[in-house]
Amino acid sequence: LSALSQRPAASPDLPPRYQPLLTGNRLALARAISQVEDAAPDAVAILRALYPHSGRAHIIGITGAPGTGKSTLVTALAQHYRQAGLTVAIVAVDPTSPFTGGALLGDRVRMRTLSGDPGVFVRSMATRGNLGGLSQSTGDVVTVLDAAGFERILVETVGVGQAEVEIVRTAHTTVVVEAPGLGDEVQAIKAGILEIADLLVVNKADLPGVERTVKALEMMLELGRGGPRTIRHHGVLLQVDAPLAQPTVATTWSIALLKTVAATGEGVAELGQQIEAHRTWLQASGELTQREQVRAAQLLENILRAELNRRLLAQLPATSMVELVEAVRQRTVDPYTAAHQLLAAF
Amino acid sequence: LSALSQRPAASPDLPPRYQPLLTGNRLALARAISQVEDAAPDAVAILRALYPHSGRAHIIGITGAPGTGKSTLVTALAQHYRQAGLTVAIVAVDPTSPFTGGALLGDRVRMRTLSGDPGVFVRSMATRGNLGGLSQSTGDVVTVLDAAGFERILVETVGVGQAEVEIVRTAHTTVVVEAPGLGDEVQAIKAGILEIADLLVVNKADLPGVERTVKALEMMLELGRGGPRTIRHHGVLLQVDAPLAQPTVATTWSIALLKTVAATGEGVAELGQQIEAHRTWLQASGELTQREQVRAAQLLENILRAELNRRLLAQLPATSMVELVEAVRQRTVDPYTAAHQLLAAF
Repeated sequence: LSALSQRPAASPDLPPRYQPLLTGNRLALARAISQVEDAAPDAVAILRALYPHSGRAHIIGITGAPGTGKSTLVTALAQHYRQAGLTVAIVAVDPTSPFTGGALLGDRVRMRTLSGDPGVFVRSMATRGNLGGLSQSTGDVVTVLDAAGFERILVETVGVGQAEVEIVRTAHTTVVVEAPGLGDEVQAIKAGILEIADLLVVNKADLPGVERTVKALEMMLELGRGGPRTIRHHGVLLQVDAPLAQPTVATTWSIALLKTVAATGEGVAELGQQIEAHRTWLQASGELTQREQVRAAQLLENILRAELNRRLLAQLPATSMVELVEAVRQRTVDPYTAAHQLLAAF
Repeated sequence: LSALSQRPAASPDLPPRYQPLLTGNRLALARAISQVEDAAPDAVAILRALYPHSGRAHIIGITGAPGTGKSTLVTALAQHYRQAGLTVAIVAVDPTSPFTGGALLGDRVRMRTLSGDPGVFVRSMATRGNLGGLSQSTGDVVTVLDAAGFERILVETVGVGQAEVEIVRTAHTTVVVEAPGLGDEVQAIKAGILEIADLLVVNKADLPGVERTVKALEMMLELGRGGPRTIRHHGVLLQVDAPLAQPTVATTWSIALLKTVAATGEGVAELGQQIEAHRTWLQASGELTQREQVRAAQLLENILRAELNRRLLAQLPATSMVELVEAVRQRTVDPYTAAHQLLAAF
């Protein structure tokens, strides 16, 4: 596997039990990811040791509304990459998890199709009930998979909410998936989603109404063209407007619109080719540097926030917090005054 | 208007220019909401002064996937409340705004239907690009509307993402809207969404396939029944498991399943009645206290986080942050080491 040749033989700072992940051991990899996902004791040591080895994978974000067949498309795309001799990791972010803790229906199908192939690694991310945490742990898991030598990392998010979009925002290539017949109101969402899309896919293109969906998207692409795209990190702490690098090739990327039938594999090879074309453009145009600045800023900010929260939690007395919540509920104190009382000790 | 009689005549701590909102002045109300939404200089003073006057409105969260006709349903529900003599505020949270800054298509229709009625106030929330901020500013805007005397506050979120769900989690009554024919994958989402639903509405019930959708939901309700529901605040800083109050009536609420055709008004009166029944149950069972504890904890935590971020930002030198982001991008430093360097000065 070409991925194996990219892997560093060893990383001196990585705790010994995780070292085998650098030479393709899946159990060590799964353990490391669990540590990172749970923010367990070894998480920081793992990430510190692996971060310098990351930066070679191409990260592909795939998002879209429920019902568009994203999971099937991601599975088909993974198969396409395997046929091309590339190693693939899939990170599926599941927004239903804060409630059920369960995995998506699509997962079981996917596991059957891809299981047994050592060049594929699939991980479903449960969410831990807070938004920043989801974004952070996804980024951290991607870092581990990247350092472990996977050449393409597919980050799949279900839903059209902000948290999901925030996650794909840090991908190198973002694929937005649509499907025919999901209702007219979806059009309003599309207008927004186009601003994060590098590639637009109408999946289930064998269904009736596909041409209407394609036409509607083409109209939106037409409307949206012309203005330059600026990538921003929208963090509270760090504001990064990535500067435009000196252009050596076309500085704008025209969003490609593709039709696929993921269930039969139709159009999936073309999608794979378009992703590679986008990757080539990113490197040649200098936009790759921009996107990685945004990604670095987001990683840094997530850590800063988590550490601040940890320090605060360690210093606040739990009893006074419960009392203050109750006082706020009864409206004997307003939440701002309560917060300042808590922070006075900090 | 009965709302006017509930309003406090004046609040000594409220800056004078916002005082008229307590006696029904819409311009003063709109100005106060803008201050709060933008976290502008007067925001904290407004919220401190108004918080003690809040707590009388019934807050109704309405969520569901795009294409379910939520906006039309919310408009019809508002009309229902107006006919019953109740004042209504609508807060529409728009997830597309981080990209386009634009309002939803449904908004224009709604404005035509409800405009000119002094007993209705409609506000579309733009998002400011960060997740915590959206949740906080929605909560703050609800506090202002509550203090201004609106008796029913409808918080509408588009999408099925985490941020949207986090917002409705703090409502008194949560209505989840479905519609026929939105694809089988939606079923997976439903399994999760049921855990936040107090009422389940199949809108567009005149479309084909409605009975299949109703059956699927009934099956899920059947599966989900039995276990007690625990409401939690999933914050990083504060963990609140609201204790069960001593039961005086049934301690569990059976999720009602309703059919509506919002466009014709069919079923909307029944929905209104079910919301009132839920409100009565919340008060009698003691669950209202639980939900308000969760809400208080969330308000407090949001303020704590924002204040921590502000303090950090004020102390960090901007230049070293830009340099560190660049170093992280180039992988000459890992983000954890970078974060600790930044925090060393804090």
